[in-house]
Amino acid sequence: MYRYKITIAYDGTNFAGFQKQPKQRTIQETLERAVNKIAKKPAKLIKVYGSGRTDAGVHALGQVVHFDIPFSLSDNAMLHALNSLLPLDIEVLNARQISSEFHAQYSTQGKRYRYRLALGEFIDPFKRNYTGHWKLSLDLKAIQAALPDLIGEHDFTSFCAAGGHTKTNIREIYEATAVYDKIQNEIIFEFYGSGFLYNMVRIMVAVLTEIGSGKRPEHDILRLFKVKDRNQARGTAPASGLYLKKVYYPEKFSK
Amino acid sequence: MYRYKITIAYDGTNFAGFQKQPKQRTIQETLERAVNKIAKKPAKLIKVYGSGRTDAGVHALGQVVHFDIPFSLSDNAMLHALNSLLPLDIEVLNARQISSEFHAQYSTQGKRYRYRLALGEFIDPFKRNYTGHWKLSLDLKAIQAALPDLIGEHDFTSFCAAGGHTKTNIREIYEATAVYDKIQNEIIFEFYGSGFLYNMVRIMVAVLTEIGSGKRPEHDILRLFKVKDRNQARGTAPASGLYLKKVYYPEKFSK
Repeated sequence: MYRYKITIAYDGTNFAGFQKQPKQRTIQETLERAVNKIAKKPAKLIKVYGSGRTDAGVHALGQVVHFDIPFSLSDNAMLHALNSLLPLDIEVLNARQISSEFHAQYSTQGKRYRYRLALGEFIDPFKRNYTGHWKLSLDLKAIQAALPDLIGEHDFTSFCAAGGHTKTNIREIYEATAVYDKIQNEIIFEFYGSGFLYNMVRIMVAVLTEIGSGKRPEHDILRLFKVKDRNQARGTAPASGLYLKKVYYPEKFSK
Repeated sequence: MYRYKITIAYDGTNFAGFQKQPKQRTIQETLERAVNKIAKKPAKLIKVYGSGRTDAGVHALGQVVHFDIPFSLSDNAMLHALNSLLPLDIEVLNARQISSEFHAQYSTQGKRYRYRLALGEFIDPFKRNYTGHWKLSLDLKAIQAALPDLIGEHDFTSFCAAGGHTKTNIREIYEATAVYDKIQNEIIFEFYGSGFLYNMVRIMVAVLTEIGSGKRPEHDILRLFKVKDRNQARGTAPASGLYLKKVYYPEKFSK
């Protein structure tokens, strides 16, 4: 068998998330259909493994998946074959034959997420599926002052929705930024970390937005780490603003 | 009765165009539903008139409509009432009570359309509903050399799809531009003219794209004006790239 590492972008609007579910249009099922066609397999024999799930409506700029096919194709042939078979809301950015040691999920070293929060009184119709929206005023400086509290190893229990299946809620955040994009009138958050719990980025954005609007004290994140109680973090920013930007792997698997 | 001039933006992706049609989701019907609710009319008594139709999938950055209601509301109250009732793919940008002389269609002095043509080998999933796409190489200089041929008064019969209902196919183009947006890797066309026939902008973009890819001689537009034959212009660029950007009215109705 020959293993391929595939980097994809997708518009999550019309998908019920990454993971296969009966009678739902999902990224995984859509990819498996294309891969099995390329491999000339009639049944859904070949499975596609992702770096992790994304929820319904969440987008990807650089999700990574792998699968094995019984014959070898050039990277370029694989890229073109997949793009010709996939619907227009999924694009393969890169295809690469890789050692069978590589596993899209278990080899990850980190992930980077982006969150686009549109400001302004009304929702721009062209952004409704591609951003979260905040119509009240927001103090970016207060948000930026809170971001360092996220950096490092913490117990993110307060930032984790029910429904995840993980041994530990301890994760490490390497980088957390928020910048204002004047042309778009958006705040762009980015989070780079070892891994993220279920809904963790969206809960962090909701908490940061409340800090920026004065509804929470500036260092409330430190308190939330201590109390380990999801109910204290309340909101979850909408899926539409969230993008899985990059998945990090050890040097030997990178490209 | 009190007349209102309303400027709206919409994402045309999930609409069957502007004009009401049985059992279809259209801009006109969606607006009429909101307006009749504001006017507290149970039936679809109040009609909404647009500056003109847009096709299924075509977007607007500044479409204009008018309607009459039996009582007066402040401009700001109308703006907020409409935006609170309309779905997220339509946004009211401006609402203004106006003289009953104003008519969204008959008072127009001109229109400006934009067309976004995405380049690159594959279609970006985030652009599939918001641009046309051209994967081959394109000579922008050849396109720019052809654009002045469009300027002025011409018979646009070759650039008009069947299905329009107009007395004459003579229109005047005041401005036609094409620029390359490096960040987006798109060619942005803009056309400003007295009025546009059915599918005229999309046919012009298709012809210009063929000129830019060497499939037509540089001044083929002049020949197309002469032959007055739609079949000679062949293609129609996809609806997804087209935006009604602005509708022009006499000074007294402008704002």
